[in-house]
Amino acid sequence: MNFQPINIDSKFALFSEQWSPKVIAKVNDYLVKIGKLQGDFVWHKHEETDELFIVNKGILRVDFREGPVFLTKGQLLVVPKGVEHKTQADQECELIMFEPEKTLNTGNITCDITVEKLEWI
Amino acid sequence: MNFQPINIDSKFALFSEQWSPKVIAKVNDYLVKIGKLQGDFVWHKHEETDELFIVNKGILRVDFREGPVFLTKGQLLVVPKGVEHKTQADQECELIMFEPEKTLNTGNITCDITVEKLEWI
Repeated sequence: MNFQPINIDSKFALFSEQWSPKVIAKVNDYLVKIGKLQGDFVWHKHEETDELFIVNKGILRVDFREGPVFLTKGQLLVVPKGVEHKTQADQECELIMFEPEKTLNTGNITCDITVEKLEWI
Repeated sequence: MNFQPINIDSKFALFSEQWSPKVIAKVNDYLVKIGKLQGDFVWHKHEETDELFIVNKGILRVDFREGPVFLTKGQLLVVPKGVEHKTQADQECELIMFEPEKTLNTGNITCDITVEKLEWI
């Protein structure tokens, strides 16, 4: 066996596309994904799963129908299953996500920013 | 609904006990746990689950039978299920863990540092 630590910042340095989550690790049937966000996402929800967000850089706004939550580096938020939300960032934000491998980035919505097949980096 | 971001460093500031993981968030049936480590743990394995470690402060050594892996802040490691390992830190280390809620800190071993009931903070 060959165990290598994974440097999160080094993984972020490997890509520049926004709204295109990459996989950096797998824990059972859950994935650790990282993504770069800027601008506005689509309202969506995940009927089958909670979703964990940890901000690595920048400021992430997570909109809920009740209002926004702001996250900065070192803060995390669990979006409960079935709850509509939308991510937004004025400046580019780096986000770490933890969720079941079948989770689609746009949840119950399919559109041009839906990523069906995730890339490992 | 009331969504509050969770500040990881603020949660670490709430306790000082070592080898006593606390729960800070739940994602489906997985828990986000944080712990302070110093010294040597016990060799153990988790037959049923992988285990995700992310270092928040200090240097963590994870010993495997094949040799050690060193992790610093911003690095992660997945310990595969069934693989014997032991954590160690010369200076106090802050560790974030992600694993199923039924996961026992000492895995297949029960001893005086086994934590059966986890505290939420």
